[in-house]
Amino acid sequence: MTLWGGRFAGGLDPLAARFNASLAVDQRLWDVDIRGSVAWSRALARAGVLTDAECQALCSGLMQVWAEFNAGRFVFAPGDEDIHTAVERRLSEIAGPVGGKLHTGRSRNDQVATDFRLWLMEALAHLQQRLATLQSALLNQAEAHFGLIMPGYTHLQRAQPVLFSHWLLSHFWPLERDRERLGQTAGRAATLPLGSGALAGTGFPIDREALARDLGFARISPNSIDGVADRDFAAEFLFAAALLGTHLSRVAEALIIFASAEFGFVEMSDAFAAGSSLMPQKKNPDMLELARGKAGTLLGLLAGLMATLKGLPSAYDKDLQEDKQAVFTAFDTLDVMLPVVAGTVSTMRIDQDKIRAALDTGSLATDLAEYLVRQGVPFRETHGIAGRAVRRALEMGVDLSALPAEEWAALAPGLDISPAEVFDFGQSVGRRAVPGGTAPEAVQAQLALARNLLISRQI
Amino acid sequence: MTLWGGRFAGGLDPLAARFNASLAVDQRLWDVDIRGSVAWSRALARAGVLTDAECQALCSGLMQVWAEFNAGRFVFAPGDEDIHTAVERRLSEIAGPVGGKLHTGRSRNDQVATDFRLWLMEALAHLQQRLATLQSALLNQAEAHFGLIMPGYTHLQRAQPVLFSHWLLSHFWPLERDRERLGQTAGRAATLPLGSGALAGTGFPIDREALARDLGFARISPNSIDGVADRDFAAEFLFAAALLGTHLSRVAEALIIFASAEFGFVEMSDAFAAGSSLMPQKKNPDMLELARGKAGTLLGLLAGLMATLKGLPSAYDKDLQEDKQAVFTAFDTLDVMLPVVAGTVSTMRIDQDKIRAALDTGSLATDLAEYLVRQGVPFRETHGIAGRAVRRALEMGVDLSALPAEEWAALAPGLDISPAEVFDFGQSVGRRAVPGGTAPEAVQAQLALARNLLISRQI
Amino acid sequence: MTLWGGRFAGGLDPLAARFNASLAVDQRLWDVDIRGSVAWSRALARAGVLTDAECQALCSGLMQVWAEFNAGRFVFAPGDEDIHTAVERRLSEIAGPVGGKLHTGRSRNDQVATDFRLWLMEALAHLQQRLATLQSALLNQAEAHFGLIMPGYTHLQRAQPVLFSHWLLSHFWPLERDRERLGQTAGRAATLPLGSGALAGTGFPIDREALARDLGFARISPNSIDGVADRDFAAEFLFAAALLGTHLSRVAEALIIFASAEFGFVEMSDAFAAGSSLMPQKKNPDMLELARGKAGTLLGLLAGLMATLKGLPSAYDKDLQEDKQAVFTAFDTLDVMLPVVAGTVSTMRIDQDKIRAALDTGSLATDLAEYLVRQGVPFRETHGIAGRAVRRALEMGVDLSALPAEEWAALAPGLDISPAEVFDFGQSVGRRAVPGGTAPEAVQAQLALARNLLISRQI
Amino acid sequence: MTLWGGRFAGGLDPLAARFNASLAVDQRLWDVDIRGSVAWSRALARAGVLTDAECQALCSGLMQVWAEFNAGRFVFAPGDEDIHTAVERRLSEIAGPVGGKLHTGRSRNDQVATDFRLWLMEALAHLQQRLATLQSALLNQAEAHFGLIMPGYTHLQRAQPVLFSHWLLSHFWPLERDRERLGQTAGRAATLPLGSGALAGTGFPIDREALARDLGFARISPNSIDGVADRDFAAEFLFAAALLGTHLSRVAEALIIFASAEFGFVEMSDAFAAGSSLMPQKKNPDMLELARGKAGTLLGLLAGLMATLKGLPSAYDKDLQEDKQAVFTAFDTLDVMLPVVAGTVSTMRIDQDKIRAALDTGSLATDLAEYLVRQGVPFRETHGIAGRAVRRALEMGVDLSALPAEEWAALAPGLDISPAEVFDFGQSVGRRAVPGGTAPEAVQAQLALARNLLISRQI
Repeated sequence: MTLWGGRFAGGLDPLAARFNASLAVDQRLWDVDIRGSVAWSRALARAGVLTDAECQALCSGLMQVWAEFNAGRFVFAPGDEDIHTAVERRLSEIAGPVGGKLHTGRSRNDQVATDFRLWLMEALAHLQQRLATLQSALLNQAEAHFGLIMPGYTHLQRAQPVLFSHWLLSHFWPLERDRERLGQTAGRAATLPLGSGALAGTGFPIDREALARDLGFARISPNSIDGVADRDFAAEFLFAAALLGTHLSRVAEALIIFASAEFGFVEMSDAFAAGSSLMPQKKNPDMLELARGKAGTLLGLLAGLMATLKGLPSAYDKDLQEDKQAVFTAFDTLDVMLPVVAGTVSTMRIDQDKIRAALDTGSLATDLAEYLVRQGVPFRETHGIAGRAVRRALEMGVDLSALPAEEWAALAPGLDISPAEVFDFGQSVGRRAVPGGTAPEAVQAQLALARNLLISRQI
Repeated sequence: MTLWGGRFAGGLDPLAARFNASLAVDQRLWDVDIRGSVAWSRALARAGVLTDAECQALCSGLMQVWAEFNAGRFVFAPGDEDIHTAVERRLSEIAGPVGGKLHTGRSRNDQVATDFRLWLMEALAHLQQRLATLQSALLNQAEAHFGLIMPGYTHLQRAQPVLFSHWLLSHFWPLERDRERLGQTAGRAATLPLGSGALAGTGFPIDREALARDLGFARISPNSIDGVADRDFAAEFLFAAALLGTHLSRVAEALIIFASAEFGFVEMSDAFAAGSSLMPQKKNPDMLELARGKAGTLLGLLAGLMATLKGLPSAYDKDLQEDKQAVFTAFDTLDVMLPVVAGTVSTMRIDQDKIRAALDTGSLATDLAEYLVRQGVPFRETHGIAGRAVRRALEMGVDLSALPAEEWAALAPGLDISPAEVFDFGQSVGRRAVPGGTAPEAVQAQLALARNLLISRQI
Repeated sequence: MTLWGGRFAGGLDPLAARFNASLAVDQRLWDVDIRGSVAWSRALARAGVLTDAECQALCSGLMQVWAEFNAGRFVFAPGDEDIHTAVERRLSEIAGPVGGKLHTGRSRNDQVATDFRLWLMEALAHLQQRLATLQSALLNQAEAHFGLIMPGYTHLQRAQPVLFSHWLLSHFWPLERDRERLGQTAGRAATLPLGSGALAGTGFPIDREALARDLGFARISPNSIDGVADRDFAAEFLFAAALLGTHLSRVAEALIIFASAEFGFVEMSDAFAAGSSLMPQKKNPDMLELARGKAGTLLGLLAGLMATLKGLPSAYDKDLQEDKQAVFTAFDTLDVMLPVVAGTVSTMRIDQDKIRAALDTGSLATDLAEYLVRQGVPFRETHGIAGRAVRRALEMGVDLSALPAEEWAALAPGLDISPAEVFDFGQSVGRRAVPGGTAPEAVQAQLALARNLLISRQI
Repeated sequence: MTLWGGRFAGGLDPLAARFNASLAVDQRLWDVDIRGSVAWSRALARAGVLTDAECQALCSGLMQVWAEFNAGRFVFAPGDEDIHTAVERRLSEIAGPVGGKLHTGRSRNDQVATDFRLWLMEALAHLQQRLATLQSALLNQAEAHFGLIMPGYTHLQRAQPVLFSHWLLSHFWPLERDRERLGQTAGRAATLPLGSGALAGTGFPIDREALARDLGFARISPNSIDGVADRDFAAEFLFAAALLGTHLSRVAEALIIFASAEFGFVEMSDAFAAGSSLMPQKKNPDMLELARGKAGTLLGLLAGLMATLKGLPSAYDKDLQEDKQAVFTAFDTLDVMLPVVAGTVSTMRIDQDKIRAALDTGSLATDLAEYLVRQGVPFRETHGIAGRAVRRALEMGVDLSALPAEEWAALAPGLDISPAEVFDFGQSVGRRAVPGGTAPEAVQAQLALARNLLISRQI
């Protein structure tokens, strides 16, 4: 049995049937599909298409199908090409001929689009919680290590000293943008296509606004052709997922480098690391490497779906069936990746001594230049003086702060240089007290802001 | 001369200099760069780092540089590796040593990020106008051809009759989502990084909130490391551009098919078509094909930048320099593509006769099934009856509406079938009167909604 | 139990274990993994690391494991994180402590790379057969419809008449290039990494050349670090798969358009088409649409893996674990898609009348221009004359071939135009007799060439 | 004037003309376009379509056009929409009406495809030379530092000691595969489409084989439709470029990490590094970061073109115009990137002391385990012993090699452990003497193999 047998003389080629079948992928939609069908039954009844008794029969049959799925007792039949066929087939077994009335005025096109959006709306809410867990992990570590100064890097070269907490928080804010993007995606996903029929709009007087309210959608689609063809929400989610993956990849990349023996800033806990089948001494940051690698996979899911969407003409084409595997894979990936990265961050050991030992007065050259600026010399000039001082110190093989006084006199004639004041990591950090800067009071304010954001969302 | 000479003994290898230089790409930032520097000068003065006279000297020097660019008289020097170097070099020529004070407390990292965001905010506003032009073109054609019925397609097979205006509007709404996405991207771009310094925050007491107001930003970045490293706004724009490109590709694909001799629904005007160097009879929809092709290129720009971003550690790395070429190319592409597609749509000739001739009573089989539903038969059953009727008509080589009465009697025993009522395209369309449906009153409402959206935005 | 327990105090976090586990993906490697281990055991014996009895014990234990897998009786244990662990665990259960000697001098790094390459080499040979099936289907249809003339299209506009067989063959040759590419990929994949150890080379005197011969590799990897890090073969396969997908997408796109009611050139058999849950009359080319859609997915797999590979430092990083899912998905997709497209092509009905009816003398305008060229007029001029003739015919509403003599006289004064000779589709086709052209004798030669290629490969 | 005016009443919309024009991109094809036209003229003469005098007139006119381009004196006219139009327009100015005979029997479709392939064939040869330069740089450094032992890394954790030369060579072989791939791409590109006309084959009796020989092609295209539609060669090149970019990215990533202060293994020369506008002490590996970043851009070019190709129907569609920008950008990028990376590698300073200081006896744990294997204990057991020894050493805070004898006795009762023999980096490296291993003699052989490959190619 198929849903479209009447016009067809022969059956589907077995390999074609396998190529066509989407059940393995879309069966996880059983919950939203049944809820959608219950709402549709009610809408048909409100429209006078079904009697109350028929509606009741359909709804209670659907409830029973739901219960079978929920209990893991649902049995698929060989002809169930997708979850929608399976649910309707089982409903008819339970409810009898009235089951054949469920699909009145509806098409798989608007049904699938509705199911998929409903699923995504709930999936996005779930991922936002996962995000908050990782944000909390970063925040907790930032609070726990407040005051620790580390070398800040650009180009992976030591640049200027920053608070370790400030560095951790620099990975909090990208996640906050991800949260905002996921929310906006959910907002746009909350448009109900049901009632669009195959493409022309349903032929029955359905109250679509009421249907939208029933199912938790914010609005109805304004055009039935666009209603069944629109997969922007899937592409948007894949983009948000890929960008989130990119952010996880960046924090992973940094921590993998920090976990090298040469840096030695952090050590993964045994619970979030792996060893080697050959080399007994190895403790590898596998979780972070997987996160970094999976960011590539997420990008591929986005590129793949967008390539599929591009070039389709309007309305529904079967190519759109590719949307679900991509979205489900992206969701499943993030669903595990976010807590695993959170666990890795929460349990990693911070080696404060190693971090402090990596501070280097060379990274105070900017402070030197700015110190001279405060004596009235244009920055371009003081930048040059400081640069030559760095070079001189390298040539002499001494620390920048240890250049002898006569060298300073030669480098900056007539200027006053007090190494003690200039070459102090704490003072350097403290001077960057603008909002968003790395001075302790600025970071304290940043921590409070971040904490408040997390709390406000849980209320 | 470079901005970072003091520490360096030798010069840059010529090929390395060419590889490193970004001037050819970033020179279009001259306007935002200078406006950013004027604001920075004022902020330095407010912070007491510059005297009012120094600030005045810098600002009037910058105005002069601006005037040179604006008049097309600015001359780049060989050492100008990027637009920022060029502006500062020229400023110092004009203003003398005080020019060396401009870069106080600022880094190219926060400067570039500020310029780029400012540029994008304005570019996005511009593209939204371009979008509105195309939306208007669709809307005007929809209004001009109101009432015309066409075959609606799914899987490129005739599915159900729809209003041609409804079909046109199905391409209006994706653009409306694009507009919303571009707006949200602009919203997130409006975060000021200036004052972040290289990564640690500026060492001078800059009032960053005032600076944000001066430059038209909505807020300041909360973390200086993230401030210089964040390129989410660029990736977001490229995504929005690629999805917009996909929407243009879909309308292009449909119109290219409609413009084939076999469909013959539309004909491009000579002003938006091209011929062949070999085949004298050809009139090709080149503009639409280019739009469809460039959608692929836009997707590539997105994939490329995201691959670049993935795997970077935190803070600024030079890889980020790849961001601008991608964003500028995407902007320039859309800046021409949107009006060209709008022009193509506005000037194409609609062949109403060909469109009407393509209507086919087979596409009313759903109406037949629903007609029988109204007589109380479950839809699954009426779907089967209608399917068999289609098959029978194919076998007999007649139109579905022309099946003889005895065939109907055999197919649907005991049911009443009145071809005149069922097989009427106008009635079919008229029955789909739910909001979003293709019935004339529903499309009329949709047109009004769309028109109001366009008008409200221009106020 | 894990393979790397000694150095670790605690166990892996359960979610981390799930994130880390690859068994669900890599278990299909059981066959190549066991064959690789048998070969490794023998190599260890040849190197004097194992006694013959030990080698014998390992090999017969591995054979038993193989038999369990082959019979579907293998039972995975909870700690089996990947197929390699599972096999070795089971081997030790069967063979006792000697099982602990199997991994001597080997690392999972070189083991996995070896397994994966071996699997791919065989998968590529399989896909090449699948390709030949589709090529045969095209060729058979081309032979079956030899002589039928169709309008050739560029820009989806009728361009010049061509043989339908010629059009079908235009999709044969891209597949031939795919075959060549898959072969070259297999050639490069046939480089044995085993013996590379974790990265430094095995510490035992293994005869790697003999090992390569045992396992069917063409050569050994020349550098052990590159040996474990190289995934070029995976990226190459994904590229070849994506380009093959693109070719399938192109033939699908053309046939979808040809299957529209407006073209009506082909009709899919019921065995390779699908209907609609709502619209009883629909017969949709779902198989071709899925092929077109999956081409996008294949492109995404390529982009994803390459983004993952980019930016890794040298030697093995865990990110590489992402390689297998992508490669397996691409293989599984093509493994079904190729025969399904072949089946669609083989069983589609060609409507010769509709095809002939679409021939249009306008598409002979080039023949007209070239006819005049043979009278000595420069082509640029005759192109103009023919173009104006087309315009005049459009204005008069007549067929190009039906322009009255006085019009011809006005358009081409002094030139002789004999419509009968010029406006003949058969003569037009026949004139294009260069190798590769569409004249019957040229297409006959092309058919023979294609047939020979297919046959030569089966010998 | 356009090449296709006769049929058109009005001119092209100015914005559409700008959208359509490809001259800015394709003008670099002037050389191959003219050479192609000269060969075409001769072929027309051989076919009796042109007299010898006409052919002579065309060829000498084309030579003059060539000379104007070569001297930088060619002046484009406003109507020159692409390089092909420009050349033919200028030819006609020079040669008079006979210029109008050049395009006889040819279409821009086969002309463009021919030009593009010819250009690519030469570009690929050029890039292979660029590749050899980088391979030489790696090889020279490997020879110069032969004998130096460094820690080999997997997962960026110290794994086992390897020769620094071995590590450098691990980046040689991927480039060798790139060279092979570029060569195979060139091989497939060497298929002549000229003579395919617009799609049906030229209508004149051109000797295509002779034409192929004239232009340096290896064979002619076997099907004229495929001849004008095939862009596999462009996609293949972009893939080869992106994979090459990935290899450059990997070496760049490794060197960027090695150049950090914490590793300190290498220091870029001033000629291949950059400073900071703010921080005077900075020396950044900008060239390597750009290489890493541009690898992302190259991947985007591939994804973009493939998305464009996917979904096109057969034969020529205008979307294909997007091919050239992508291919040219990829070429130009690699053309500079390869020598810049080569220069960076050639001139970087290797800090042998820092490298040696990073050796760590923990990375000899595998040697320990294998040492015990040689005493007959199964590897799985010795791996466990060595792992526990590492843990014990960590707990005691001593070097693995410094564990007291009583600890060894407890860890490996009854086994003999002689630290001196086990914990020697030179011996460890020396034991990995299999072909491809890191032992000095194996690396020496590898160096010889690599050197021979480079030399053999220059002959």
